[in-house]
Amino acid sequence: MSSPNNFNIISVGNELLNGHTLNTNLHILCKSIENIGGFVSRAYIVKDDFAEISFALNNSISDDSFWIIFSGGLGPTYDDITIEAISKSLDLPLKINNDALDMIKAYYDKLLKTKIISNYNLTTTRKKMALFPIGGIPLKNNIGTAPGMLLSNSNKKIICLPGVPVEMQDILNCEVIPLIKSKIIKKFKKEIIVSLNGFTESDISPILELLNFKYPDVYIKSHPKGFNEGISEIQLVISSVTNSLSNSSDRVNEVLNLWNEMIKKN
Amino acid sequence: MSSPNNFNIISVGNELLNGHTLNTNLHILCKSIENIGGFVSRAYIVKDDFAEISFALNNSISDDSFWIIFSGGLGPTYDDITIEAISKSLDLPLKINNDALDMIKAYYDKLLKTKIISNYNLTTTRKKMALFPIGGIPLKNNIGTAPGMLLSNSNKKIICLPGVPVEMQDILNCEVIPLIKSKIIKKFKKEIIVSLNGFTESDISPILELLNFKYPDVYIKSHPKGFNEGISEIQLVISSVTNSLSNSSDRVNEVLNLWNEMIKKN
Repeated sequence: MSSPNNFNIISVGNELLNGHTLNTNLHILCKSIENIGGFVSRAYIVKDDFAEISFALNNSISDDSFWIIFSGGLGPTYDDITIEAISKSLDLPLKINNDALDMIKAYYDKLLKTKIISNYNLTTTRKKMALFPIGGIPLKNNIGTAPGMLLSNSNKKIICLPGVPVEMQDILNCEVIPLIKSKIIKKFKKEIIVSLNGFTESDISPILELLNFKYPDVYIKSHPKGFNEGISEIQLVISSVTNSLSNSSDRVNEVLNLWNEMIKKN
Repeated sequence: MSSPNNFNIISVGNELLNGHTLNTNLHILCKSIENIGGFVSRAYIVKDDFAEISFALNNSISDDSFWIIFSGGLGPTYDDITIEAISKSLDLPLKINNDALDMIKAYYDKLLKTKIISNYNLTTTRKKMALFPIGGIPLKNNIGTAPGMLLSNSNKKIICLPGVPVEMQDILNCEVIPLIKSKIIKKFKKEIIVSLNGFTESDISPILELLNFKYPDVYIKSHPKGFNEGISEIQLVISSVTNSLSNSSDRVNEVLNLWNEMIKKN
């Protein structure tokens, strides 16, 4: 069953697969979602291609995610096809969304007013950014031209964000996070990171396994950081998400205490 | 049909989905593959979970990729399950691979010799890193403990690399790139990046569409970079991959010349 705390993310763009662009958007999205108690259960990175976008969308619809977040492919160029691909995939015809068109006009009016441009026409290319499938709701972009989009379909919330990082983050923070918070089952996260010197991952693995068995609800993970002046470094993350901050803290502290006890004996 | 130039990448690790870790491995893999004439057609990011790894593997096997590259989940801890998940998914029993075991022993012997550790046992946890499905071939890791793995299955090459970036890159450069180069249909890439000031993406979109229509084999993509002191900045990438460097250069130059002509008229 799909939980309102469960997300899939679909990053769209050839530049993410041909090595041009490091996918910082996915990282920011995951961090922001985790921080408000949600969790990303899977991510796809696909090309600017109808079949690829449709593949990731259909798989996300059929799994247990409630939110499907796209980033990339909302701009005015010919290869920005995310919204058109969603419309085709869900068989929802495209239509000019007047609210989206007003946002686009307001953006160019602002450029005109601040003398960044001296004139503009609402060309087909520009109007393209207001073409939404029936039911699509625009999400205001305070930084760039293309509005984001929210679409409710198959009991899921589909959200489209631009690929330009500053624009993605603006819509995420101003529009999407408040929306998620209104639906999500409220969770609180407590996390501590312990630095360990002089142990290899193999040394601590049996302790981690035991802790994980005893506390399956707590996230306990080691990250090897290599050697510093011949001494092995490991980062240990202990993290708990529960319905209250004090419960989360209690769980983390329990694990930490047991960890300290066991590592002393090692 | 699967082409030897076609790759899928599967990044495994909860830390990539909970916002802890930026997926630089995927970026490095994509860049390295593109640079030798291959292309990554899709990427998945999945949790440390049997069903999730199996989902991505099965989809990759059924699509047109020839190479399936995993990164992450090869270490000694209980949640490092990539190879076990592949073995279950393909119904290939796990067995200690003696070559892999020798590599692991050699690694700990080195730590012993350089006095980083004072003794070691080949514990179950350490031996786990040598458990390979039948047919798996170890790929030497010069930096850390866990060897990578190469497995030929269903006319595909499955490659497993560690998640620690320096280890991933070591095996990629020393073992995987030479292997790929021996199978790939040799291609040469020429790319130029043009910086544009004073245009919005909407302004240049019709030109890009026309160029793309005229040169479907050349990659032509604009990346808006925002405003610098009130002036819009765009990066235009023109890139061609053909069977010779001179052909690639010719295609890029043709597009660049036509681009310069058309932008002057704008």
